[in-house]
Order: sequence, then C-alpha cells, then structure tokens
Amino acid sequence: MTDLKRSWLASANSAETPFPLNNLPYGVFSSGDGARRMGTAIGDQVLDLTAMEADGLLSFGGTLGAGAWNGFMALGREAWARLRARLTEVLAEGGDQGLSRYLVPLANVVLHMPFNVTEYTDFYAGRHHASNVGTMFRGPENALPPNWLHIPIGYNGRASSVVVSGTDVIRPNGQIKGPNDDLPRFGPSRRFDIELEMGAIVGVPSTGPITVAEAFENIFGYVLLNDWSARDIQAWEYQPLGPFQAKATATTISPWIVTAAALEPFRTATPARETPLLDYLTEPGPMLYDIDLEVTMAPDGQAETVLSRTNYSVMYYSAAQQLAHHTSSGCPMRVGDLLGSGTISGPTKDSRGSLLELSWGGKEPITLTTGQIRSFVEDGDTLGLRGAAKGNGYQIGFGPCVGTLRPARPI
Amino acid sequence: MTDLKRSWLASANSAETPFPLNNLPYGVFSSGDGARRMGTAIGDQVLDLTAMEADGLLSFGGTLGAGAWNGFMALGREAWARLRARLTEVLAEGGDQGLSRYLVPLANVVLHMPFNVTEYTDFYAGRHHASNVGTMFRGPENALPPNWLHIPIGYNGRASSVVVSGTDVIRPNGQIKGPNDDLPRFGPSRRFDIELEMGAIVGVPSTGPITVAEAFENIFGYVLLNDWSARDIQAWEYQPLGPFQAKATATTISPWIVTAAALEPFRTATPARETPLLDYLTEPGPMLYDIDLEVTMAPDGQAETVLSRTNYSVMYYSAAQQLAHHTSSGCPMRVGDLLGSGTISGPTKDSRGSLLELSWGGKEPITLTTGQIRSFVEDGDTLGLRGAAKGNGYQIGFGPCVGTLRPARPI
Repeated sequence: MTDLKRSWLASANSAETPFPLNNLPYGVFSSGDGARRMGTAIGDQVLDLTAMEADGLLSFGGTLGAGAWNGFMALGREAWARLRARLTEVLAEGGDQGLSRYLVPLANVVLHMPFNVTEYTDFYAGRHHASNVGTMFRGPENALPPNWLHIPIGYNGRASSVVVSGTDVIRPNGQIKGPNDDLPRFGPSRRFDIELEMGAIVGVPSTGPITVAEAFENIFGYVLLNDWSARDIQAWEYQPLGPFQAKATATTISPWIVTAAALEPFRTATPARETPLLDYLTEPGPMLYDIDLEVTMAPDGQAETVLSRTNYSVMYYSAAQQLAHHTSSGCPMRVGDLLGSGTISGPTKDSRGSLLELSWGGKEPITLTTGQIRSFVEDGDTLGLRGAAKGNGYQIGFGPCVGTLRPARPI
Repeated sequence: MTDLKRSWLASANSAETPFPLNNLPYGVFSSGDGARRMGTAIGDQVLDLTAMEADGLLSFGGTLGAGAWNGFMALGREAWARLRARLTEVLAEGGDQGLSRYLVPLANVVLHMPFNVTEYTDFYAGRHHASNVGTMFRGPENALPPNWLHIPIGYNGRASSVVVSGTDVIRPNGQIKGPNDDLPRFGPSRRFDIELEMGAIVGVPSTGPITVAEAFENIFGYVLLNDWSARDIQAWEYQPLGPFQAKATATTISPWIVTAAALEPFRTATPARETPLLDYLTEPGPMLYDIDLEVTMAPDGQAETVLSRTNYSVMYYSAAQQLAHHTSSGCPMRVGDLLGSGTISGPTKDSRGSLLELSWGGKEPITLTTGQIRSFVEDGDTLGLRGAAKGNGYQIGFGPCVGTLRPARPI
C-alpha cells in the first residue's frame, strides 16, 4: 500500500479528493472561450497543459495543443513517463507554485471527450455476469457458453456512439418481438439497461499478434465505461451475429484517463483459473487492478441510490489478456482503440453490474431510497458509475460517469 | 439501358474497358515519387486530380490533395455532382485534350486505399447465403434465423483490418476446437475462406435515425469487398456475441470507388418480400444495382479458375435499407463508414459467394481448371473478385479485388 504524495496545492492532499498528486489523470476541458484545452486534474483544479506547452514549459511536439490525447499517446512510453515525472516534480511539495497561474477550478470547466475513440471493442469477461445472464437465458446448467473459460469473448462495438459523461442519452427505438408476439414491431425499447465496465485505452499501435506482456505495456490508461444496452432489441436481433443496434445508442465514459502508471500500485491477479488457459493468454504477472466500483441511480433529479458495489478485480480476464487475444488473428490495433472490460458483477446480488441482473430480468424489481420501483431505466433517470483505487490516505478516482435518459424520438 | 458516353481518349471508348467516361471512379495512386495522389480512372489512364487542383483547374477546397477521398466526400452532394459534371465535360469528345498532361498510364501506378475506413460494418443480407450456411449449421428446417426476414442482420467489423486489393493476407492463427476435440488448441486456421460482397461507403454523416430514402442519398459509392473468414475460428468463438477474430485478419476492397451516380442507370429492385417489412425499412424505389460478379482462384501463380458467377441484385436487403437500420437506434454515422453487403450467393451451386458454400463445408471439394482440389484457401492461392454493370456497348467496372494468402506466422 503506497502513501500519498503531497502537493503544494492543499486540495490535492485530502483523503477525499479523487485527484491527488498520485493520480494526474488526463482530460480535455473548456472554460470561458470554449476552446478545447488539455489538462491534468489535481485536487479541485485542472492544470492547463495546453497553455504550459504554448509557453514553452513543456515540450511534447505540440501534441498538448491538439484537443485530444491521441497525438500525445502516439509519442510512446518514453514521453508518457517524461510528462508524468515532470508533473509529479513541479506539483509536489517544494515544487513550482508559480504554476498556479495555469490552474483553473474544476468547478468552472466543461469536460469533453479526452481522446478520439478509434475503434471500440466490448468484452464479456465477468464470470458472475456471464453466469447470471446465461442462467436467465439458457438455465443454470447451460449458463456459461462452452468457450467462455478459454476465450476472452468479445465483439466489435460502435466507436461513433461513445460519449463523455454528462451527455444525455435518448431512449432508442428498435425492432422488438416479445415471446408471445407473432411479429416484431418498431418502437421504444422498454428494457433499457446499463453495464458497469472499465475501458482500457490502447496507446501503442501493433500490426500483428502481441503477447499478454506486450499488451499490458501498450495500454495507456483506463476510464469508467457504461455500455447502455437495450435488452429487448438485443434479444430479438442477436442471433446469430451478436448485438448490434441494442448497443449502438450510446456508451458513456468518464472524462479523465487514469494512466496505467497511476494504477501501478493497485495491480492484482485475476482469479484462479477454473481450467488452464492456452499459452498465448497466460499472464506473466498480476494485470488486473483493485478498483472499487459503484453504480448509482437518481430518478428524475431526486437523490441517488447506490444500486451496486463491486470491484474490477473480480474479472476473469484482464485488459492485457483481452488485447492479446484481440491481436491473435493479426488484427491491427491503433492508438485510441477502446476495450470495454465486460460487465463487472460480483458474486452477490448487491454487487451486480447491470439492471438486468439486479432486477433478475424484471422479476425482482428494485426499490430506490426515494421510493420508486425500477426494473430498467426510466425516462429522466440519471445513471452513474464511480470508481476509486484506495491507497494509504489517498485514492485514485476517475471522476463522474453519468448520463440521463431522455424520452424516445417520435416515430 | 444507357449508351456509352464517348471520350476524346480512345481507350475509354472500348466496350472492354472497365473505365469509360460513364464511370469516372475515384482512387488514390502513386507513381515515380511515391506521393499519394487522387485520381479518376479513364480508359487505360488515371487523371491526376491532385495536380489539376494544385494548378487551379479544379477547386474543391484542397480536398483533392489529401491522399484520401474522405475530405472530398465531406463536402457533400453538391460538390460530388459538380466534380462529376466537370470531369464528364472536359473528358468528353470535343472536351479539353490539353488535359493529356495530367494523364498517367494505369500500368505505371500503384493503387492505395481510396479512403480511410472510419468504421466497418458487415451484414448478412443474402437470402441464398443465409439459407446455405444455416442448412449446414442447423439443418434445412432451421436454416433461416427467425429474425432474418425482418431485420437486415449486421455486426460491427474491424476497420483497421481493411486493406486495398493486392495486399497479401497472412493466414491467421487462432483458437480452434473441432467437434471431436476435448479442448481448444491455438494454431493456424485450416478452413480459411473468402466472402464475395459489395461495400457501400457513407459520404454524408448523420446523428440520428434516417429513412431508407435519406440513406440512399447518403451513400457516396461502392467497392468490391472480400471479407476473408476463418471458419474454424468462427465456429468456436461466435456464440453468443458473434464473429470476432475469425473476421479480423483482413477485408480486401477494390481500389476504385464507383460512385452511386455512375451506377444510377443500373438501379434495380430487391426481390419480392417473403413477409412484409416494417415501415422504417420499406424502400420507396429500386435501390439495389444490377452488377455482374465473379469469384476467381489462381493457385500459386497458375491460371485462374472462375469459381462462381452471380449478381448483386439477388440480395434481399439494399445498402440503403442496411444503413437506415444501422441508424435506427440513434447510432451516429460518419463519412468513410463502410458497409459490407453480406455474402452474395445466387440460387445455384455455381453462383455461391464463399468456399464454405461452394465446397459445402469441405464435403464437395472443387476441382480447379489447373487440376488442384480445393475446399478452402491454401497458402499461395490468389483469390479475386470482379464486378461490372453492363450498359449498351460499355461497362462500369470496379478494377481488381485480389489478395494472396501467405503462410501463418510461427507460434
């Protein structure tokens, strides 16, 4: 358990802040003039790295003025380490308090997509989630697909639908056919759901197969990720080629990229293998992270209820294993590729990462602290994810990952 | 049936050329200095549009110097019509023969990816293909999935794996588990296949649902598309979330974007509906095209065999219907999105668009004219697609769509 690194900025030394000096997450913000600037969150402030590079205090080839972190990521690991070391130095106790002029209060900024999502892949790597969903759809004997313990199952998602926290989500229309319907109809999804996930961001490109160890080194950082899912559209469309429009309305990510470097002290091993993995998927060391996670729901502007508490470390496959598998066919990976972990559900009912599981397909509706009953998301509900790795007197937070559901478009 | 438009360039007036004045497809080429230039194919020449814009003979905001057609597409339909009209005028009989100085022989150029693929979606819209594959996997009674006649079934593919004709393809390694194996193993695919498809390119972005009529207008043009597929990897991985690494090795496209404008005289209706479609998928007019297609195989540098002859018009869903469905959930579409039609198989054995179907899963191997026997693709085989819409004394061709399979990487 590592200790807090103290900063000359008092708000960064609080045990409550998500953004101590140990974190230094990367985001994109705007304030008065609306221009997109790149920054790092520190305490209750954001340090304007675009302005610092423009003034010659940082030198990363102009990538800090690009309004997205892709160009900086493409500089490679040496640049990643150099920027982190420099920021750690100047923001530490005894560092350069003259940099105060580059601080902007977080309360005064709008946060934007921190990077351009090149391609988006979603996985299905949570053992409990796969078992829960499988049980509901196929019964307890056939809960887990036969390939599941051998392959980090994944599918390609839709990069154009990834949005930053705070973006409203419009309830989708789609083809729906209930079990008792003769024919499908086109209308609003009535089983609109969320999925609690972590997103891993590829920072180093590859053109052929890479090992799990290489994959781990190629991941620049992580975000929280809510993969909104229309369960009724999914049920009718997904055979035989997988989910498509059910997952294409929106995927919300948190606005700060928490780097793999910041998460390094929190590395933890995947759970014990139930059956041995093939060599190309074997991990040379712990590659998951101990990150506490929560799902919240706030109905129509009212107080939030925490629906679920779990931890990223329950996942059966790490992002490094998923990325290595992703390249096994020779599939090229590019800077800015986003890999969703799959829904993170723990072993107990109150640690499930989707409403489908929490309400057991609607059979066991949830009562919110404000009194409302929910099986799926209703119009006006704000869904949120929270995440934090807990150190000794500090935490590595991700910032909010929220979205409010708005009514479907008229047909 | 429309007539040949005659050009002052004699080679463009041949009934045999794929590139008469009626076509004017858009590509990216390089010659001596290696710089990527944008051009249109005319007869046996390519007209250097990058040089013409640099010299002030065309004015499209510098997009013709970008080395990819995305920027030009983003200018919108008025620009598309203006460039086509201008090229038709200056290359016609009585036009500007002084433009000869911008012609480069096609024989002397290397062709590159004509556009940057933003995202790639693959569909499954061939009635005969779906029935054939379904029969092999599930028996004739359950050949067609219950949603198939209602939904243009599609899944997200991998844009990073799309390559231009002429690019070698490396046989993928992957997880494979045969029906009699206890456990999966990791090794080279032994059932590596092709899929004959058309690719539609989105030229106008959209942020919410669009109609089929709007979708038709948003498609800039078409290419031939070979969706290389590892059937043994696919069989083990695809449940429950669809194909992933089986389809991520490579997808080959032809180098020339044949515009929707050039194909306009060849519009044809989709086949009669076997069951009515929901309103949002109904076509207001003919939106498929009458394009003759062929699949060829040339083993290890020897003479090619034509494996299959079919026509794009057999597809059950048009690209416009697929694009409209793609947006139904609110999924944003961007300039450069590529939509694969799905495998185009006709009703007869010699019109099937994949080796899986042609060799009926390996049970009925094919004998090539050179004597070799094939069930799937062998190392050294060159697979090719050809396509042409046939007018009165002319044809609209797509250029080659070929790739040679190279041995798998050592594990």
